[in-house]
Amino acid sequence: MRNMGYKILLALALWMVTTEAFPKDALRTKCHLTKYKSLPHQELEAFKKAKDKFEDTLLLSDRKCNTRIFHRDWEVKELSVHDRVSLVENELDFTIKVLEKVEDPDLAKLLRRPLEIVKQIREHMTGCARPRHSHSRSKMLNDWLQNLLASKEKETPACLEASVILNFFRLLNEDLRCAASMELCV
Amino acid sequence: MRNMGYKILLALALWMVTTEAFPKDALRTKCHLTKYKSLPHQELEAFKKAKDKFEDTLLLSDRKCNTRIFHRDWEVKELSVHDRVSLVENELDFTIKVLEKVEDPDLAKLLRRPLEIVKQIREHMTGCARPRHSHSRSKMLNDWLQNLLASKEKETPACLEASVILNFFRLLNEDLRCAASMELCV
Repeated sequence: MRNMGYKILLALALWMVTTEAFPKDALRTKCHLTKYKSLPHQELEAFKKAKDKFEDTLLLSDRKCNTRIFHRDWEVKELSVHDRVSLVENELDFTIKVLEKVEDPDLAKLLRRPLEIVKQIREHMTGCARPRHSHSRSKMLNDWLQNLLASKEKETPACLEASVILNFFRLLNEDLRCAASMELCV
Repeated sequence: MRNMGYKILLALALWMVTTEAFPKDALRTKCHLTKYKSLPHQELEAFKKAKDKFEDTLLLSDRKCNTRIFHRDWEVKELSVHDRVSLVENELDFTIKVLEKVEDPDLAKLLRRPLEIVKQIREHMTGCARPRHSHSRSKMLNDWLQNLLASKEKETPACLEASVILNFFRLLNEDLRCAASMELCV
C-alpha cells in the first residue's frame, strides 16, 4: 500500500515537471509551416472568389498608387531558407493589418474568409523563425521590407487594399509554398 | 477499255461537282467550337502570365472606368445555346479590337500571344452561329451587347484595355467553355 502511495507521488511529480518543461505556449508556437507546401483547394477558392469580385469593381474606384509596394526584382528562392520565412511572416503581417482596417462593409465581408485563413497561416508560423540574434537578414530582403513598411505612410488605404488583394496568389503560391518547401525550393 | 474511259469521266465529273459544292471556304468556316470545352494548359498560362504582369503595374496608371463594361447580373448558362455563341463571338470581337489598338509597346508585346490565341478561337467559331434571320437574340443578351458596344465611345482606351484583360478568364473559363459544351452547360 505504501508502494502504491510512492508511485502516485512519483507520477504527480513527473506530471508537474513535464508540464513545466512543455507549457501550453510551446504547443502554440510549434512551427506548422511544411503543411503549406500546397494550400487546400477550398481555401485557394476563397481567395480566388474574393479577388475576382474585387476586380469586378476595381476599375470604378480610384486606387492609384505611387509605387509598386510588393515589387521586387529577385525571386523568393534566391533567399536563404531563414529569409524566406521572414519574408512570408512580414507579408502576412502587412496583409493582416491592411485587411483588418478595410472600412467598406461590402469589401470587408468579401475579405472575411481570406483574412481568417491568412491569420491562421500566420499563427502556424509563430515558431518557425530562429531567434533574431543568431541571424542577420540579407540586404536584398532588408531593402524590400523597408520599402514595404514605408508604403504604409506614403500610400492611401485604397492603394494598400488593392495591392494586398492583387498580391494574394504570389504570397500563397510562390512565397509561402517556397518557404514551406525549405531547402527543396530551388 | 471504253468502260474504263466512262469510269474516269464519271469520277472527274463527280470530283468537279463535289469540289464546287464544298469549296475551300466551307472548310475554313466549319465550326470548331467543341474543342474549347477546355483550353490547353499552355494557352491558359499565356493569359495568366500576361494578366499577372499587367496587374503588377495596374495600380500605377490611371485606368478608371465610368461603368463596368463586362458586368451582367445573369449567368451564361441562362442563355439559349445560340445566344451563348453570339455572346462569345461578340466578346472575342471586342477583345480583339481593343488588344489590336494597344499603343504602349511593352503592353502590346505582353499581349501578343493572348491576342493570337483569341484570334484563333474567333476563326474557329466562324461557322458556329446559325443565320441571323432564323433567330432573334434574347433581350437580356441584346441589352448587354448594346452596353458593351456603347462603352467604346464612353470609356478611355486605358479603361477598355484593363477591362478586357481583367475579363480574360471569365471569357475563357466560363463563357467560351459553356458555349462549347452546348446543351451540356446547365
